[in-house]
Amino acid sequence: MKHGRPNRRQLLQMGAAVGGSLLAGQKALALETDPRKLGQPLGPYGERSSFEKAVRWTRESKTPETGSSFTPLHDSVGILTPSSLHYERHHSGIPTIDPAKHRLVVHGLVDRPLSLSMAEIRRLPSLTRILVLECGGNSGGEWGATTGTDVQRSYGLVSGSEWTGVPLSLLLAEAGVQPRASWVIAEGADACRMMRSIPLAKAMENSLLAYGQNGEAMRPAQGYPLRLINPGWEGNTNVKWLHSLKLTDQPYMARDETSKYSDLMPDGKARIFTYAMEAKSVITFPSGGQTLPTRGLYELTGLAWSGRGRIERVEVTTNGGRTWVKAELQEPRLPIALTRFRLAWRFDGQDTIIASRAIDETGYVQPTRAALIAVRGTNSNYHYNGIKFWNVRADGRVTNVEG
Amino acid sequence: MKHGRPNRRQLLQMGAAVGGSLLAGQKALALETDPRKLGQPLGPYGERSSFEKAVRWTRESKTPETGSSFTPLHDSVGILTPSSLHYERHHSGIPTIDPAKHRLVVHGLVDRPLSLSMAEIRRLPSLTRILVLECGGNSGGEWGATTGTDVQRSYGLVSGSEWTGVPLSLLLAEAGVQPRASWVIAEGADACRMMRSIPLAKAMENSLLAYGQNGEAMRPAQGYPLRLINPGWEGNTNVKWLHSLKLTDQPYMARDETSKYSDLMPDGKARIFTYAMEAKSVITFPSGGQTLPTRGLYELTGLAWSGRGRIERVEVTTNGGRTWVKAELQEPRLPIALTRFRLAWRFDGQDTIIASRAIDETGYVQPTRAALIAVRGTNSNYHYNGIKFWNVRADGRVTNVEG
Repeated sequence: MKHGRPNRRQLLQMGAAVGGSLLAGQKALALETDPRKLGQPLGPYGERSSFEKAVRWTRESKTPETGSSFTPLHDSVGILTPSSLHYERHHSGIPTIDPAKHRLVVHGLVDRPLSLSMAEIRRLPSLTRILVLECGGNSGGEWGATTGTDVQRSYGLVSGSEWTGVPLSLLLAEAGVQPRASWVIAEGADACRMMRSIPLAKAMENSLLAYGQNGEAMRPAQGYPLRLINPGWEGNTNVKWLHSLKLTDQPYMARDETSKYSDLMPDGKARIFTYAMEAKSVITFPSGGQTLPTRGLYELTGLAWSGRGRIERVEVTTNGGRTWVKAELQEPRLPIALTRFRLAWRFDGQDTIIASRAIDETGYVQPTRAALIAVRGTNSNYHYNGIKFWNVRADGRVTNVEG
Repeated sequence: MKHGRPNRRQLLQMGAAVGGSLLAGQKALALETDPRKLGQPLGPYGERSSFEKAVRWTRESKTPETGSSFTPLHDSVGILTPSSLHYERHHSGIPTIDPAKHRLVVHGLVDRPLSLSMAEIRRLPSLTRILVLECGGNSGGEWGATTGTDVQRSYGLVSGSEWTGVPLSLLLAEAGVQPRASWVIAEGADACRMMRSIPLAKAMENSLLAYGQNGEAMRPAQGYPLRLINPGWEGNTNVKWLHSLKLTDQPYMARDETSKYSDLMPDGKARIFTYAMEAKSVITFPSGGQTLPTRGLYELTGLAWSGRGRIERVEVTTNGGRTWVKAELQEPRLPIALTRFRLAWRFDGQDTIIASRAIDETGYVQPTRAALIAVRGTNSNYHYNGIKFWNVRADGRVTNVEG
């Protein structure tokens, strides 16, 4: 079997383009001649190389318990984000929760209220999904006149993880949801008791009570020991440190669904409960703040995702939008997951503008910033998904394109 | 879309089986009442909860630079292994390599010898694959009369990762492989210069020069900054800290393909170059050393994999082999990757024997230990893939079944 190898065209491009640069390396044919000494021993829980420096970025703050940290997308490879680099958005810090004492309560309009320990939850039928998680406010700065200067700071509130947990529908069936119930109010055990109202239909469709992330227990910053995962919905609805699910016949109208995480329209009205994250993409290399050291062939790459399903196609322009070509998509393309796209691209030392646009399986096409603003205005902070352009300058420096 | 939800049958089993135990939880309905204090702040590179204790297991050794550490499979969820818990097998410790100084040399029977820096390698067309990696010696103790007592110590030399890198075929095309070449000798930069001979056909088919693991740079213990990945082949051939690829017309007959990693047959002859890892599976919960706290419904779960492609089916017995039922397989089932299987199972307090057997897409069925020994004898240390039985005792303790 031959999985996902570059196609013939790519190979030929490669040969024609970088053959010279590779041959130039012949001088350095001598193998490493360091003295042979024993390396580090086996260990219980490994760490990354001390040469690796990628970290989440956080704005200077006197209240680092509330705020966001941004995933270093410019350093990303593949479709997963290391748990240590998963973006954060906390409203009152990361609580320290002993899983042996934690309980999830299911109450309100149910026939049989439940209180479950983590051990009880982990006995239940589970499933695993690789999913994208994106803050509703990701790339919100792009609404403004001056758009983000690098991909981490402007697009870093998105990450991909493998989540494992129990389908919420299963617990709700156990609790016996009463006919009058139409909402599930999810509340976290953080100091601010962050809460969101989830329509019952979503909860029954594919919400997950997750306890596992990337093969181990979920990290504290992502909701340890239990998090509500609503596939494809804005990050804020994926309530962390989940300790209560209350069935009601109306939404709670919590702070984070009225004053925040609502979309102020040009006419001054606010749309609320705009949960789904629309199709979006961004080039991660080359991207703002990076420098191409030489002319020649590079692998242009980035990430695309949609809260509504699979990414069907990603198109890339390397000439400021005059023409768009299909990028190669990493298979398997999973629904509501990060999808890596790649394109062999030759930098010929000319100033140029590059960008990507995603098309998802519903046929939705990621809009230009102008098209988005024509509908939404610029009052909003949330759900920005316009096409992101980068300027590759003649000297190889990559910068933002002013909005 | 509804992805991978438990089926109707499972839900009904669940309702019938644990309804009582869930209802008993009503007493504890009161929500957490801890004083509300701010939690931990945002951070640059996250860590797991201090309540999580899973670690790799290592045999006591005066030379911890050479040996193995075992992944805690009993704590695993999903199909990925955290990089920090990926199994290790080192022959002279983990070298500390500065990626800015590291080079890969491609030489021998090639028209254009190459020497590439990591920066040059990262410019080349790449791909990403989720793959299983298993030591050829994994579960080797099971050849003996007394089989392993827990799943970590007996089966923990297997892990799953997302790898990103450059197809080796692409580099070989650049180097111009001469017609006489039929082998690639891969050598690592560790003190012992671990090397293995790879048939050219494999190198051209799907070998990968990997630099990324689970979304970031590969960990030092797994070969930082560059590792040869041979999908489906015994771990030892996936040469870590890769610094040299030499094209030859014969294998090197290295220590690790003659005295080690060869299969001694009953007649005293040794099979060498038995690269592919055959289909295999093991139940990770309940497994040896664990205890079921009560009777009632549990999710029995485990992992299956095959070096030859996708897992097609996993069958589970909970009555010592009298009957076998199909387990549910986590989708997507990726070729040559860990595949999670699950089965809702009621423990009724009777002593019983449980086991799993994997069938891969080639139709190969994981054999019993007896069937394996009938062909291979018991002289071997490598490539053991017999069915693993666990004994669930009446008091809930899970133990090994003596071989």
